[in-house]
Amino acid sequence: MKAYQYRLGGSMKDLSIVERAPPRPGPGQVLVRMRAASLNYRDILVVTGKYPRAQQDSIIPLSDGAGEITELGAGVTGFSVGDRVAALFFQSWTRGEMRDRDSHTALGGSIDGVAAQYCVFSADSTLRIPEHMSFEEGATLPCAALTAWNGVTGPRAVRSGDTVLTLGTGGVSIFALQLAKSAGASVIVTSSSDEKLARARKLGADDAINYVTTPDWHVAVRGLTGGRGVDHVIETAGGGTMERSIASTRRGGFIHVIGLVAPGQFDPVHILLGGVTLRGTEGGSLEMFASMNRAMAQAKIKPVIDRVFAFEALPAALDYLQTGRHFGKIVVTIA
Amino acid sequence: MKAYQYRLGGSMKDLSIVERAPPRPGPGQVLVRMRAASLNYRDILVVTGKYPRAQQDSIIPLSDGAGEITELGAGVTGFSVGDRVAALFFQSWTRGEMRDRDSHTALGGSIDGVAAQYCVFSADSTLRIPEHMSFEEGATLPCAALTAWNGVTGPRAVRSGDTVLTLGTGGVSIFALQLAKSAGASVIVTSSSDEKLARARKLGADDAINYVTTPDWHVAVRGLTGGRGVDHVIETAGGGTMERSIASTRRGGFIHVIGLVAPGQFDPVHILLGGVTLRGTEGGSLEMFASMNRAMAQAKIKPVIDRVFAFEALPAALDYLQTGRHFGKIVVTIA
Amino acid sequence: MKAYQYRLGGSMKDLSIVERAPPRPGPGQVLVRMRAASLNYRDILVVTGKYPRAQQDSIIPLSDGAGEITELGAGVTGFSVGDRVAALFFQSWTRGEMRDRDSHTALGGSIDGVAAQYCVFSADSTLRIPEHMSFEEGATLPCAALTAWNGVTGPRAVRSGDTVLTLGTGGVSIFALQLAKSAGASVIVTSSSDEKLARARKLGADDAINYVTTPDWHVAVRGLTGGRGVDHVIETAGGGTMERSIASTRRGGFIHVIGLVAPGQFDPVHILLGGVTLRGTEGGSLEMFASMNRAMAQAKIKPVIDRVFAFEALPAALDYLQTGRHFGKIVVTIA
Amino acid sequence: MKAYQYRLGGSMKDLSIVERAPPRPGPGQVLVRMRAASLNYRDILVVTGKYPRAQQDSIIPLSDGAGEITELGAGVTGFSVGDRVAALFFQSWTRGEMRDRDSHTALGGSIDGVAAQYCVFSADSTLRIPEHMSFEEGATLPCAALTAWNGVTGPRAVRSGDTVLTLGTGGVSIFALQLAKSAGASVIVTSSSDEKLARARKLGADDAINYVTTPDWHVAVRGLTGGRGVDHVIETAGGGTMERSIASTRRGGFIHVIGLVAPGQFDPVHILLGGVTLRGTEGGSLEMFASMNRAMAQAKIKPVIDRVFAFEALPAALDYLQTGRHFGKIVVTIA
Repeated sequence: MKAYQYRLGGSMKDLSIVERAPPRPGPGQVLVRMRAASLNYRDILVVTGKYPRAQQDSIIPLSDGAGEITELGAGVTGFSVGDRVAALFFQSWTRGEMRDRDSHTALGGSIDGVAAQYCVFSADSTLRIPEHMSFEEGATLPCAALTAWNGVTGPRAVRSGDTVLTLGTGGVSIFALQLAKSAGASVIVTSSSDEKLARARKLGADDAINYVTTPDWHVAVRGLTGGRGVDHVIETAGGGTMERSIASTRRGGFIHVIGLVAPGQFDPVHILLGGVTLRGTEGGSLEMFASMNRAMAQAKIKPVIDRVFAFEALPAALDYLQTGRHFGKIVVTIA
Repeated sequence: MKAYQYRLGGSMKDLSIVERAPPRPGPGQVLVRMRAASLNYRDILVVTGKYPRAQQDSIIPLSDGAGEITELGAGVTGFSVGDRVAALFFQSWTRGEMRDRDSHTALGGSIDGVAAQYCVFSADSTLRIPEHMSFEEGATLPCAALTAWNGVTGPRAVRSGDTVLTLGTGGVSIFALQLAKSAGASVIVTSSSDEKLARARKLGADDAINYVTTPDWHVAVRGLTGGRGVDHVIETAGGGTMERSIASTRRGGFIHVIGLVAPGQFDPVHILLGGVTLRGTEGGSLEMFASMNRAMAQAKIKPVIDRVFAFEALPAALDYLQTGRHFGKIVVTIA
Repeated sequence: MKAYQYRLGGSMKDLSIVERAPPRPGPGQVLVRMRAASLNYRDILVVTGKYPRAQQDSIIPLSDGAGEITELGAGVTGFSVGDRVAALFFQSWTRGEMRDRDSHTALGGSIDGVAAQYCVFSADSTLRIPEHMSFEEGATLPCAALTAWNGVTGPRAVRSGDTVLTLGTGGVSIFALQLAKSAGASVIVTSSSDEKLARARKLGADDAINYVTTPDWHVAVRGLTGGRGVDHVIETAGGGTMERSIASTRRGGFIHVIGLVAPGQFDPVHILLGGVTLRGTEGGSLEMFASMNRAMAQAKIKPVIDRVFAFEALPAALDYLQTGRHFGKIVVTIA
Repeated sequence: MKAYQYRLGGSMKDLSIVERAPPRPGPGQVLVRMRAASLNYRDILVVTGKYPRAQQDSIIPLSDGAGEITELGAGVTGFSVGDRVAALFFQSWTRGEMRDRDSHTALGGSIDGVAAQYCVFSADSTLRIPEHMSFEEGATLPCAALTAWNGVTGPRAVRSGDTVLTLGTGGVSIFALQLAKSAGASVIVTSSSDEKLARARKLGADDAINYVTTPDWHVAVRGLTGGRGVDHVIETAGGGTMERSIASTRRGGFIHVIGLVAPGQFDPVHILLGGVTLRGTEGGSLEMFASMNRAMAQAKIKPVIDRVFAFEALPAALDYLQTGRHFGKIVVTIA
């Protein structure tokens, strides 16, 4: 089969397609013919050797994919050949809270990922994608959508009437917008592009702020909420925006710390004086994945795909991701 | 001013309109010209002397009303004459969890209620009704809607993709239907009337079960949820339905115990074996009321009013409530 | 090896020791030489065919045991031969919330139990017992202690300064007493025996009520808490005591519904008027087991063992359990 | 009466005793003859004009005091002359979650404080100090102890068997140590002084780390917890220690952000990778204060007072606080 491989310490150019023997499903595993994979900013960090958890010399990249089951390992129940499935980002995080050791089972970083024609997954780490989604759409769910769902339904789930602030219009942010809207929230989106803000409004955003033309966007957010502040921030950027994110949030509100895009530092005195909670959020369990799929099926949410590349064009797709020009997810098909 | 009075130990016929001096707002209070009031099943219990917390000999009935502020007491800020407002069911439950002593401050039961042309309320127990609602609609919120909101957003708030079961089509049930839909849930409604079920479907109910023609409705509920059971039950009936309610609920799910309509007993072993949580839920705080109003404004929820009676027809309105023929709320205008 | 077997539909007398081939550990399993087992009231229900979940014709009874690992199956890490271990009551409930299907994996009910010289368990369902405990003591943990821990640390964990009420002096109640004391709570114990109450006081109970001489014990509980009511009830009895348990509990307090001993019915209107939460609680996950072990090690809690029987005397031990004369746990050694 | 005053924009030397007319209790208020006050690091910030919320030109400093009621305003119930009381740090935070406007009602910062012979407080903001405490001890509770309690019982209360890390040996840290021990936790304390660490051990600390001789104290903390990390950090220092605090904390653990002593910045990527929650925590409500008093009465906790100064020596007491040589609380008596 065809699969991508990268070299640790290499660059994006060292990413190449190789021919490998297809894996075989062991007891309790399923063999999946991958049909599509989606990209996350983390993949760039992994491929360029900047991801703190990447531990192997040469593995298959990409964490998020969807395909169909072609073979069941011994003892697998609950699945049939032909089922359309995705697999967990952290393969061992099936239930409950994430453990440290779950962090070492991430596809396409700690272990072989999904940029291949065939993968084996534990049946306990696999689930059906919603019926109303294509393989391309289902491939966007494991990391970006589930992280957004983890934030939106975290220790204090978004409720109808809440206000949610999302930073930027990347994959997690757009899923957060869609999921928060399905939960009855009002959503404020920021971006540097008026065109992207217009697209976000079409997806249901109630308010949109261009952070270039409105650099004090936290003041604008307070104004839009009658001075109250938002209930939740989906913080996909990082330390570079954190002080403004805190200043945008009501006392008692939550900031879901997700992003790595805008590194920077801040003084935690703002956490104290603002009376806010910051929570590191990354992926989710299989149980959370299943509940998200129910929400997406109920609300008929369609993942927003910016652009689809051919399998052979994965390096170009990663280049495009790095430009930040996309809106939503970037997908590669696996023929 | 005109006001109703009832006699403890009397019957519904002892309810009569009397002429009383209008109250005067003290420091921190507002005087409200009432424009509408809504009925709750509790009012029948109060007026007929069956409500456990009614403690006075002769007071003004009804707990839920809306009107406009005509005078501010000394030191009141945050309100203006002309503001369209409602007042808390439990007058002292402003924030946090309910305390025992809050239970002794219920309008139209422990203290004078709202079936009068003028009422004074503490400004801390008063809030504006949503702009998109009439006085008749705003008058339905303090008990029925806020109890539904308390259930829907309780210790484990309804999330998008959840399934909520409501019993019957009275005031609390219909509000729970609307609020659960605004939160992205799937809703199953039960009733003895196919016509009411059809109306519930028009309001957004995903599934509807006639419990007369389907007496084993808990089996039907399990079927509709793929065997999983619902995440929440809004239990407005009582012990007579509790075993089936528990059997309808998934392990880990919540049953919000609200109703007094179908008395009966049940064995708590079902709680143990079903792994469910039952929570007594009654009204809510001013903070919860404010968050509900935000949700209703965001989703443009309109309270469902079955029928409006004139102030003089309050006894007839209570008679009509007792028949159980209504769908949603019954309101009296206060001219 | 020697093992007990019971016949479904039989009586306690049909319980007999048979000779069976010792089981072999498969991949991911451990073989354990059992050294002790403890009894739960549920075992009587199982053996006499009254347990709702017992599904097989003839299996090994008892759920709670401890022993030492004598062999590791393929791929097992984290354990060594000689480790002193116990296994989960619900074998598949490793993490997170309990699922319906976990309820079908209970030892000594749904599947073979621990009344045998050798057992195999999944390594994922097995954990070390605290170092300061003997096999007899460790054998008391899986059902009774973990259920008490689940209640004491449930959705609203017992905090220092809280008051906890335990009904009776059986295994779960005494563990709840010890664990609540270790959490800084004040504990009130009830019993029909002044001698047992005196023993409970020696274990740390702050107050003790004889429910025979004080039949209105809920009034006494209110008095002991300054009218406030307790924060938690460990309800090991059932419907026969529920109304008094609710009347003993503060608004907002929790009643952990655990017991099957005193069947009976009650009207849920008391839940509504009391503003309490009832939660069905049964066993716990491996993660909860591990956290309980940390608490027991920190507080040096020793399980209270009423009496130890020889393996051959299991029927007599069950008879003794049924008399209700015990205080704490009853154990059988497995030579 | 005698009272201290400070000038905004002044220095510690501008703090002086003035003669003022004693205040009179209005309706719903109590007049309290103050007997003792305790110091917080915030008082230095206030008096030197560095506290962000200080808004008036010249007010009475200090937030934490205790005394006895000498007069009841009209309509006050539940108190008697002679009651030994303390008052809330945030006077309007009586119940529920803190609101922004509560932050503007802090004694000795936003409004007149307790460094005076007489104060009036709202009866709703006042409560009895535990019977086993002196006025000096009761005076230490409103800010430092209640902030520690808020952390220890926050969204995920400390449970028996948890491990809690406290930084330093100031007032909040020592209260956190005592309260965490009363909840059955294991406690690790850090300090730059071996002598202070020895004193902390006498108060119950299970482990002690000198952060001067062990600059990589986060590694030591991991070691003491078997690699697991602590469940809670009481972060009284600030950004200067935050990365190490996060590195000391288990995935899913809590860092209670309280302190202002060690300013600094950090990159929130550590929150993401560590999977931790940071929560700004400041003071607590009257309801929380009452529950803390129950815990302190149950565990017979005595506040640790480093040194008591005469009222006239308040500037010297503040100087001493600034040296950081204290262990626990510094108190002034008010004769």
